[in-house]
Parts: sequence; C-alpha cells; structure tokens
Amino acid sequence: MKIVIAPDSFKESLTALQVAEAIEMGIRDIFPKAEYCCVPMADGGEGTVQSLVDATGGKIIQCEVTAPLGDRTMAFWGLSGDGETAIIEMASASGLPLVPLEQRNPLMTTSFGTGELIKNALDYGVRKIILGLGGSATNDGGVGMLQALGIKFLDNRGVALPLGGAALLNLATIDFTDLDPRLDKIEIEVACDVDNPLCGENGASAIFGPQKGATPSMVKTLDKALAHFADVIQQTLGRDIKQVAGSGAAGGMGGGLLLLPHVMMHRGIDIVLSFTELEHKIKDADWVITGEGRMDGQSIFGKTPMGVAKIAKYYDKPVIAIVGSLGHGYQAIHEYGIDAVFPIIANTNGLADALQHARDNVFRTAKNIATVIKVANFNLQ
Amino acid sequence: MKIVIAPDSFKESLTALQVAEAIEMGIRDIFPKAEYCCVPMADGGEGTVQSLVDATGGKIIQCEVTAPLGDRTMAFWGLSGDGETAIIEMASASGLPLVPLEQRNPLMTTSFGTGELIKNALDYGVRKIILGLGGSATNDGGVGMLQALGIKFLDNRGVALPLGGAALLNLATIDFTDLDPRLDKIEIEVACDVDNPLCGENGASAIFGPQKGATPSMVKTLDKALAHFADVIQQTLGRDIKQVAGSGAAGGMGGGLLLLPHVMMHRGIDIVLSFTELEHKIKDADWVITGEGRMDGQSIFGKTPMGVAKIAKYYDKPVIAIVGSLGHGYQAIHEYGIDAVFPIIANTNGLADALQHARDNVFRTAKNIATVIKVANFNLQ
Repeated sequence: MKIVIAPDSFKESLTALQVAEAIEMGIRDIFPKAEYCCVPMADGGEGTVQSLVDATGGKIIQCEVTAPLGDRTMAFWGLSGDGETAIIEMASASGLPLVPLEQRNPLMTTSFGTGELIKNALDYGVRKIILGLGGSATNDGGVGMLQALGIKFLDNRGVALPLGGAALLNLATIDFTDLDPRLDKIEIEVACDVDNPLCGENGASAIFGPQKGATPSMVKTLDKALAHFADVIQQTLGRDIKQVAGSGAAGGMGGGLLLLPHVMMHRGIDIVLSFTELEHKIKDADWVITGEGRMDGQSIFGKTPMGVAKIAKYYDKPVIAIVGSLGHGYQAIHEYGIDAVFPIIANTNGLADALQHARDNVFRTAKNIATVIKVANFNLQ
Repeated sequence: MKIVIAPDSFKESLTALQVAEAIEMGIRDIFPKAEYCCVPMADGGEGTVQSLVDATGGKIIQCEVTAPLGDRTMAFWGLSGDGETAIIEMASASGLPLVPLEQRNPLMTTSFGTGELIKNALDYGVRKIILGLGGSATNDGGVGMLQALGIKFLDNRGVALPLGGAALLNLATIDFTDLDPRLDKIEIEVACDVDNPLCGENGASAIFGPQKGATPSMVKTLDKALAHFADVIQQTLGRDIKQVAGSGAAGGMGGGLLLLPHVMMHRGIDIVLSFTELEHKIKDADWVITGEGRMDGQSIFGKTPMGVAKIAKYYDKPVIAIVGSLGHGYQAIHEYGIDAVFPIIANTNGLADALQHARDNVFRTAKNIATVIKVANFNLQ
C-alpha cells in the first residue's frame, strides 16, 4: 500500500513538511508496512519557498536586500536540493508586512529587493527560478526589480528614474544594455493566480492599489504611470503588455517581468505540482492525503488541496483532507475531488490552543482515519 | 449492511436521540441502502430519562413534587413506550440545582420529592422502575423518599420525624404499616455508580456531603445521624446496611432503598444496556457508532461509549466514536474497544459556536467517516 501525503502548510503553526510528517506518523501507527511519500505542497504564495525546499532537501538562503521604502532588510529565498532551482517569494523582499501601516504609499514603494533576490540566486548558478508573486507592497510595474537586474529606466534628460511607481510618469527610454546576461540562460517560472491587466478599472492600481495604501487620487496617478510605462514599452519593443492577463499582478510586476527573456506565467499550484512531480508520485498510490490550515468555500479556487485532488481523481485515487479548521461553504470541495475532510480541532479552547497542539492534533486525526480504513473491511452492501 | 448508532447525549446541546439521528443522516447520505438502528443511550445519570423515553417511543410525565427544602417544584419522569417501565432521575425532584447556592444545607434537605415521583409512576401502573441516583442535594438516607411512600419514621414519643438528614438523630422506630402495597408487585432497578458505604470516612456524609453544602461539623452530625438510622434498621429488620456497597450513594438513598422490596442496584450503564437490548441489536451489526459530549481519560470509567464498545468488541464489531470534544488522556479509550474517535468541532470560534452547530457538526463528521469507509476499498497490504 502506498500513501501519498501532500498537504499545504498550516499557517501560523506548521510547515507543510511538518504537517506531512505528522500525518505519516499517525498512519504509520496503524499501517507500519505501508509505503509513505511525503510531498510538502504550496500554492505559489506564502510558504512556497519552505515547502519546495523541504520537498527537495534544499536550503533557505538569507540575503540582505532593499526593502520597499528603500531601507535595507533581510530576505530569503530557497535553493532546491539539486542546486538547480531558486524558489523566491516576492513578498520576502517587497512584501506589505515590510512597510509599517502608516508609511504605506505605493507611489514610493519599489520591487528592487526582489531583483536583488534574483541576482543572488543567479550568483548561486541556478538554472531556473520559480518566482511567486503576491503579497507585494509595490505598484511599480516591477521596474525596481528590473533596475536591480540592470535595465535602465531614464527620463527625457537621460537620468535614471528614482524608485517607486509614481516616477514612471517621467519614463522616456528603457536601456537593456546592462541587463544581467545570465538571465539569457535561465528560465523564470512566475507563479501568478490573478488575471488582471496592467491598467484600467481591473488593473493593478485600481484593484490592488488600495490594499497597499493608495488613496483614490494615488490610484489615478499609479494607473496613469503604468499606462505610460506600457506605452514606452510598446515604443521600445513593439509589444503591448497593457491587456496581457496577469500583467496587473503584484503592482504590475506581472507586466514588468515580460521584459525579461524566458519568463512563463502559470498558476502557482501548477508550478508546484510540476516541480514536485506529484502526478508521477500519485499514479501508483492507493490513497492520497492532502490538507491546509483552513478549508472553506474559497478553497475550490485553485489552492493546494484542489490541485492535489484534481490529479488524484484523474487516477481515481481516494482523497482525504486533514485541515486546521473548516469554514462556511466547505462542502464545495467534494465536487472538486476531496472525498472526505476532517478538521483536527479537539476542543473549544480557542485558536492559541489549536495552534499549540496542531502537530498532535494532525497526528491523532490521521491515526484515527487510518484506523477507520483498517477496520472498515466489512460488507458494504 | 447494518449500523447500530448508540451515543450518549451531548450535554448542553443535543439529546442522545438527536445525536443518533444526525449520525444516521450523515451516514445515510453515503450508504442510503444500509439498515440503521438508532439507540439513544445514557449511563444512568442526567439524560437517562430522555434517552430511554426516546429509545422506546415513550413520553415524559410532568409532576409537582416537594423540592429538597420543602417547597413545591415541577419534576418529571419517563414512561416507556410500552407503559411498563418508569424511568426516574432522582435529581429531577431532589437535585442540587433545585437548591440555591446560599441555601444548601444537607441537614435539612429531603428526598421526599423522589418518593412522590415513584408514587406518581405507580399511579400509572408501571411494573418496573428504573431509578437513577446521582446529583442529589440530600443526605437523609432516602428517608424522605420512604416517607412519601408511606413508611413512618418516629421519635421516642411516637411523633413523625420532620424532613431532613439531621432529624434522623431522633429516630426511634420505623413503621412499615402504611408502605404503599403496590411496591410489592414491582421491581426497582437502581442505577448507582458508586460503591461507598453508608457511614464512616468513605460514607455518604464525608465524601458527598461537602459538595452539597455540608461544613465539617455538619458532616459529623450527618454521619452520626445515618449511623443511628442504620442502627435502628438493624434493630428493626436485623440487617446491617452500614457497610453495603452503594448504601452511601445519593446521601444514603442507596441504603434507604434497601428497606423496599424488590430493589436491585446495578451500574447505570448496565441497566441502560439491558433495557435497550443493545447486545441483541449489535449481534448482527456490521459496525457500531457511539459518542458523548466530551471524551477524555475519565471516559473509561463505566460511561456510555465504553459500555457500548464492550458489547461491540465481544462480537468483534468495529466501533467508532463521534464526540463533542476530546480531552486529556482520551487515548485510553482505545484499550476499551473504541477503534477510532473523531471530535466534531470545525473551528476555533469557541464553545457557544460549537454548541450552536453541534447537529451540523455531528452530521458532517458522520458523513465524512462513512465516506472514508466507502472509498477505503483498496488493498491494505
């Protein structure tokens, strides 16, 4: 019997690997001779670096970078076990939590630090970069990141633009001369779960600006700046990125990335599924366990358990989810391949208790599910 | 496939029948053609009347009685569906919650109301009474109950004793002349889960007196009163009830009951198991579901799920428990026949939310367990 265990992390308590290991321990108590395949999963968002590092026996690399407002901060990225792939979460260098609430101003914030993470990864000789967008504090069209990688953004006097989205209003020319040549030889897979265009009423500024601190007038300015940015790109490269689906992701980072060679955008979960070779592992499994910190009606929109379940169901494998908690509308998951779901909570002592005992609770839930499977050998007619 | 569903009630939220019905509904969603046998259970304590009434399609009878301090109160008892059996919880007429905290005084409290419930049941022509001790506010040796049934307790001037445990100090003679003759023709099964003797350091007054409001000096007085009560019984009937196991239950009610004909004391769960014919129902079942509001390390001491599991295991049936919450040391249940246990809680919103959604949570848990059983049809080697 082979059991594939492919959960997401439980935010605030357990990494995906810790969840997977607790599940394995629980089931192993009942089926000691089974074959276990733990695959820490993620959806391209928070926790993706940790999960893919854990999935490959890689390591986390710390690295000092430019924070969104120009000060220095420590960020991290993940090097896969084979040293071939860097996994980067943009939020680590350019995320909203790095900017104090009262200083949030997407006119000024830069994605420069994300570019520095990419450069650092290139220094390690990786051949592929997985870059997770999402959680950014920036609305600069990814220009900061591109600046860090050597592209020059100049005003009409030939002077380099300062950092931040508003400065793009003065963009006149883009100079690719000093773009890091190592980018020619590597592939960047961008994990992006939104389809928003760069500009307009569904664009980066209008939709995501406000949560980064943009006032209505800032939104207008930023939208105009990104539109101008796109116009200059069109003049330079002959390519209109304004309406490209996903170009509005992460403050226009989705659009800016299109200036780099060998960039492909995919759903985060698809990148993770491919990278972990989950399908290959599930093919000869008998059952599949997945999970996430909270499962509810939103879980059907491309998050980890649904991605795992979709593959498992293609191969007709039973899928059981073990989750931190269950929320409103969770029943929809059953239509997406999750056969059964079990929250791990043991009592009504509240969140702190649940987080503290998460590992034991996962273990206990897995063990009891395995027990049911073991004793359920009677005639089902 | 036959499934026996025999849970206890979930205190503060669902009756045993409601729990059983929610479990049945959940499993029925997955196995619509299975045979379901719902047996609301209890352990002889709170909820026993409701469960056994529900188990037999009987009814609850309201009845005005004497409260522990002599005032009048509404109490209830249960008439089984066939009209043959009365189920009485002593606490309904003589329970601690009927006495305001500041008035708790076991020198004065009487079990008279419990005797009135028995009389009322006799008026309905029952042939058997199941009487659950426990939760009493009294320490009167059951004398109040016996007074209500016609036995006279007189002082040395031939005057009837007033109500309450302290008055027994003045007991001189016991007159059985007016004892309700209908008691000769019925059987009283007393559900009693304690083995305490009537008197002494492990007796009714010392062990249970304090929780009923007795000070140390009251405990001394009450212990002396019950010892004197036993002495008079010995003089009258030639029987020493002082050291009889269980005579100290419910403030000596366990001892006082020995003055009635056809009284048998058993563990509460054994009475319920026998009355519900659970063993007969389990014999040809494929699996058994039980449950209770809270399962923890104390659950192994004779409570409902353990009683159900013991029978189920004798016939080698899988047993799954669905519980309101799981507490410290619950793992011991696995040594007592519960194969797997699942708490129903979905989130960390706390007790009020859990109580409010108990029925849905039981349903969901049962349905997901059934799903696991349904999909667990692969090779377990």
